Amino acid sequence: MVNEGVADSDRLTEIVSLAKQRGITVETVSRDVLDARTPGHHQGVVLETGPYPYAAGDDLSDLAEGSAILLALDGISDPQNLGTLLRTAEATGVRLVVIPSDRAAHVTPAVVNASAGAVEHLHVTQEVNLARWLDRAKEAGFWVVGLDSEDAEPLFDTSVRPPIVVVVGSEGYGIRRLVRERCDLVVSLPMLGRIESLNAAVAGSIALYEVVRDAEDI
Amino acid sequence: MVNEGVADSDRLTEIVSLAKQRGITVETVSRDVLDARTPGHHQGVVLETGPYPYAAGDDLSDLAEGSAILLALDGISDPQNLGTLLRTAEATGVRLVVIPSDRAAHVTPAVVNASAGAVEHLHVTQEVNLARWLDRAKEAGFWVVGLDSEDAEPLFDTSVRPPIVVVVGSEGYGIRRLVRERCDLVVSLPMLGRIESLNAAVAGSIALYEVVRDAEDI
Repeated sequence: MVNEGVADSDRLTEIVSLAKQRGITVETVSRDVLDARTPGHHQGVVLETGPYPYAAGDDLSDLAEGSAILLALDGISDPQNLGTLLRTAEATGVRLVVIPSDRAAHVTPAVVNASAGAVEHLHVTQEVNLARWLDRAKEAGFWVVGLDSEDAEPLFDTSVRPPIVVVVGSEGYGIRRLVRERCDLVVSLPMLGRIESLNAAVAGSIALYEVVRDAEDI
Repeated sequence: MVNEGVADSDRLTEIVSLAKQRGITVETVSRDVLDARTPGHHQGVVLETGPYPYAAGDDLSDLAEGSAILLALDGISDPQNLGTLLRTAEATGVRLVVIPSDRAAHVTPAVVNASAGAVEHLHVTQEVNLARWLDRAKEAGFWVVGLDSEDAEPLFDTSVRPPIVVVVGSEGYGIRRLVRERCDLVVSLPMLGRIESLNAAVAGSIALYEVVRDAEDI
């Protein structure tokens, strides 16, 4: 859909011509229609796509053999945090991100935006029962490391190497009990001030980079 | 200000009684008035305060002698990112955060929220000219390390120890030329995927924790 007011600018003309070459139907509509279809800003052009294509059936044994890093998110609810974590996951070579089917942010346009497009290069899968999925990952050979502030080892004193699943809890409640019970190790970051926790996307990102760092030390 | 509809709940009664003890004027108003005064959610009670008290006149020589970590933000524009960085700064023992007076997010209620209250325990100062402030910090004995993806050393292969100023650029444009010229060293994080950069708050947070880590190795 392109904005009728600006449809003859060079930039839009080029987009329209590329779309037509690829067999995409182009509709010219009023600004109001575009505004109603986009959650944030648009620049006179909107592409309608289907829902986000979640990944299915990645073989956990293959991933473990390939020394993969996986990321499991136990109930991240803020789209900005989910997008930021997906961005870091892509940058650290994460092979699969697992999010719960319920009570968590899904991959929406706001998340794609916050991920700076990283989500297009990632495998993201939804699981009904994260604890059971972690059981399967452990059977396949993964080491499961959770991030939590209580009863935890210092992250920087611990070797965290792939094949590994990094588990990040929700913004308000951290990792749920049944998920925590599946963790081979729970780690935390040093908190040198008076606040008790970091932003969940920041903590998860630091843990992912710690895995990259430790993997390079091998 | 308390919401007239819920003003007799136990929780609100206690807040009102504590406020009166401290000589704070309590006004009972309609929900519409509360909604109009708050940028996000409220739970039936709003405290009106003055503007954020920016710090002034921290002695840079004293801070350098105390092996302080400082954080300079070159134009972070998103309140969520500013709040997240302030949260990490508090957790890593940062002694002073410097933000530009113009063309950058200031400490607003949304920022206080995103910082999880960390901003109350931090010194944040505004500077008109960040490049000149960095000159003064260098004269006082600080080492200035900027984060940027271009022409940079790998952060994890570099020793970054206090007294240090960590410089984080803006979301869209990174560090400006005049600010970059003041950096003794420019570092970057490994990017193992296809996207070119991390969220600015994540990158800055990882750099701050790297300083904490390297300081502990002394």
